[in-house]
Amino acid sequence: MTGGLTHLDEDGAARMVDVSAKAVTAREAVASGRIAMSATASQAIRDGLVKKGDVLAVARVAGIMAAKRTADLIPLCHPIALSSVTVDFDLLDDGVRVVATARTAGQTGVEMEALTAASATLLTIYDMAKALDKAMVIGDIRLEAKSGGRSGDWKRGA
Amino acid sequence: MTGGLTHLDEDGAARMVDVSAKAVTAREAVASGRIAMSATASQAIRDGLVKKGDVLAVARVAGIMAAKRTADLIPLCHPIALSSVTVDFDLLDDGVRVVATARTAGQTGVEMEALTAASATLLTIYDMAKALDKAMVIGDIRLEAKSGGRSGDWKRGA
Amino acid sequence: MTGGLTHLDEDGAARMVDVSAKAVTAREAVASGRIAMSATASQAIRDGLVKKGDVLAVARVAGIMAAKRTADLIPLCHPIALSSVTVDFDLLDDGVRVVATARTAGQTGVEMEALTAASATLLTIYDMAKALDKAMVIGDIRLEAKSGGRSGDWKRGA
Amino acid sequence: MTGGLTHLDEDGAARMVDVSAKAVTAREAVASGRIAMSATASQAIRDGLVKKGDVLAVARVAGIMAAKRTADLIPLCHPIALSSVTVDFDLLDDGVRVVATARTAGQTGVEMEALTAASATLLTIYDMAKALDKAMVIGDIRLEAKSGGRSGDWKRGA
Amino acid sequence: MTGGLTHLDEDGAARMVDVSAKAVTAREAVASGRIAMSATASQAIRDGLVKKGDVLAVARVAGIMAAKRTADLIPLCHPIALSSVTVDFDLLDDGVRVVATARTAGQTGVEMEALTAASATLLTIYDMAKALDKAMVIGDIRLEAKSGGRSGDWKRGA
Amino acid sequence: MTGGLTHLDEDGAARMVDVSAKAVTAREAVASGRIAMSATASQAIRDGLVKKGDVLAVARVAGIMAAKRTADLIPLCHPIALSSVTVDFDLLDDGVRVVATARTAGQTGVEMEALTAASATLLTIYDMAKALDKAMVIGDIRLEAKSGGRSGDWKRGA
Repeated sequence: MTGGLTHLDEDGAARMVDVSAKAVTAREAVASGRIAMSATASQAIRDGLVKKGDVLAVARVAGIMAAKRTADLIPLCHPIALSSVTVDFDLLDDGVRVVATARTAGQTGVEMEALTAASATLLTIYDMAKALDKAMVIGDIRLEAKSGGRSGDWKRGA
Repeated sequence: MTGGLTHLDEDGAARMVDVSAKAVTAREAVASGRIAMSATASQAIRDGLVKKGDVLAVARVAGIMAAKRTADLIPLCHPIALSSVTVDFDLLDDGVRVVATARTAGQTGVEMEALTAASATLLTIYDMAKALDKAMVIGDIRLEAKSGGRSGDWKRGA
Repeated sequence: MTGGLTHLDEDGAARMVDVSAKAVTAREAVASGRIAMSATASQAIRDGLVKKGDVLAVARVAGIMAAKRTADLIPLCHPIALSSVTVDFDLLDDGVRVVATARTAGQTGVEMEALTAASATLLTIYDMAKALDKAMVIGDIRLEAKSGGRSGDWKRGA
Repeated sequence: MTGGLTHLDEDGAARMVDVSAKAVTAREAVASGRIAMSATASQAIRDGLVKKGDVLAVARVAGIMAAKRTADLIPLCHPIALSSVTVDFDLLDDGVRVVATARTAGQTGVEMEALTAASATLLTIYDMAKALDKAMVIGDIRLEAKSGGRSGDWKRGA
Repeated sequence: MTGGLTHLDEDGAARMVDVSAKAVTAREAVASGRIAMSATASQAIRDGLVKKGDVLAVARVAGIMAAKRTADLIPLCHPIALSSVTVDFDLLDDGVRVVATARTAGQTGVEMEALTAASATLLTIYDMAKALDKAMVIGDIRLEAKSGGRSGDWKRGA
Repeated sequence: MTGGLTHLDEDGAARMVDVSAKAVTAREAVASGRIAMSATASQAIRDGLVKKGDVLAVARVAGIMAAKRTADLIPLCHPIALSSVTVDFDLLDDGVRVVATARTAGQTGVEMEALTAASATLLTIYDMAKALDKAMVIGDIRLEAKSGGRSGDWKRGA
């Protein structure tokens, strides 16, 4: 380990950490994020909803599928058999807030899966609204809570 | 189109917009983002650099590879033959700033490729530093500039 | 070529046919298919629509994304930069009919992309309705029309 | 759940259903499908076999590989560690019938894996024979039997 | 560039080299490799051929599909629209020799596509024969020839 | 089985062997390989290291990520939840030697994962150094040792 960075060995070389000795436990992680946009773009998404437009449906699917590909995208993540992924939205006046929850029974946590789901969901909203507003900003992507595993439960601000 | 959302048809159904009539031009997009972390985590990454640790090298590769997979992750993005991707870092006292640049000669812009590169790079830094700090926040992911294409050049704040 | 099968060489070995001498032209293909299901399952999908449920939105995204991955799934297909994909639905009393359209400017046709989009869309509907009806049957997956390329236009039944 | 559609929550939003409470049991699913084609195309495939042509070998590989990617293609499918996939053929006068069998020890069934294998196999046959016959029709894709899991065994027509 | 390594910038950071100024020309690359194995394993593959077994058919498909995914596997490779891939075999007394040829019309060479095809083909033969011989050795993977592009034609030993 | 080739059934057809009856045990495999290159290219890689260039860091990431995609590349490989992957280097006067180690707790061995990691690592080094030396040769890719599973431990030369 280099300076507490578990993904580096003593020479600073990257490695996929050995989790084979860890217990298989139920694990859950919740991550959130938001995209800030103009009132016009935000209104267009809300209007779309009213007309059964599927901006958020498409973004949700993107988030769920990205969660399943986390180990393909994040180099040192372990492949995980996710048992559940959900993506929820809060429509704000100036954007959208996303909350993603991932669950598994496995040897490693699912923080990265939840964070990847939130990120892909937000990028997809950006993609679908960018004709209306190129200046949108994606932010506040963070872990809200995790449970399961040796390191125990963790909750933001707790 | 529904309310200016080009990815929805008049019934609100998602579609991959037809770009076949657009001109093939040189296109470039620059996106940035940052991850805020504790001084301890930030120092560990800086120390890793000194010892040839490869946190940032791994994160850069993740960003470049994710840029190439953008159309696989963002449902309505067109597949694009990227001609160049670069990812640069600014090491800050309280985190890392990432700037990603993508280029192509094609019929659609590469904003999503640059934004996806920045997001995957930041998620990878999170993954590698999360043993030190679970409370890190990824934010300020945004387009800085784009050039090429019919809609012309765009620069943040300009 | 073996017995008219262009994907086999004279020894019967599979190959990705050389298209480098073919002209780059605008190409389009339309494929359709249907899934037959019980009245109950069909009604549930219709009800879902009324309540903004997104069975068909999810299935449409699956079809569009699968079209982009056609060369990854069908071993001898050429990678193609699709310029457009759309997926439309007809809700029937006993199921759903799907029509997928793919377009490109390239050296090979996009029949397989349209057929793959239709197949993935139908499989996704099956997945989402299978708790209601395991006996659903997917069928009538076929090319409706193609245009562009040396072999000229083709239309089913014409 | 919306109208019995387990992949939608009470608001009609798509979700990857939580299977973490389900038992790990041995599960098997058998799916079949067929492609109808002209006598000429059918004969070419048979002739190819005699000459060691590998139309069916290529199609079988495509089916097996697609089964492994099911969770990547079907948005709400759970990733599954398949323990076995086989694809068998019946050569008919007017086409080919495909039977795909998938097995796992896991928390969810493998119907989608078997159906995806059958679909990809049939699409690959279409691709390889389309120079001879563009009017081929893929159909009768359906589950034949499944075993394992809480919902018990199921057999078509039983 | 660092010490002639074009994939590193002046600071040693990895980058996907900008090829946007390069000419689009017809490009071809031929790569070869071999796998050495016991006479028993080699005979089993030959026997399989006689009985229409498809060890080599499966390995060929693996090579062709891997060529199409080169940019997904090799971090700094550009995505390329391959126009043709072929994989040929020489059956030897003590193994198998593989020759892979890739072609495109593009801005970068296809050496990596040909080399990746050869590698994946050989790994697949290893996988299928490993129950007979674990000591097999894969080697002599090398570029035989390339043509097209600014750097001109190159031929091994010339 | 055909002639001892377990991946072929009695008719010579490819199949993904059924491993559902195998025990879940801790499994490890070590594979190695090397790339031979000119002294100039070898020196450039060493110099890059000194200057914190990341040829080997990039190659290592490529190897680790490829290991996770083994079942996607090698048609009849089972998907495996790898618990650890490491890639180490020996810098030689005339090239680089790579040693890859993979671990899992599962029903099948991880030889293919270790071999695939070594191959992708070597191909990536080739890619990054090919501007200096097109004549590099990749070879000696082989299993060094495996442990776990019914067939017991195996060590090269033992």
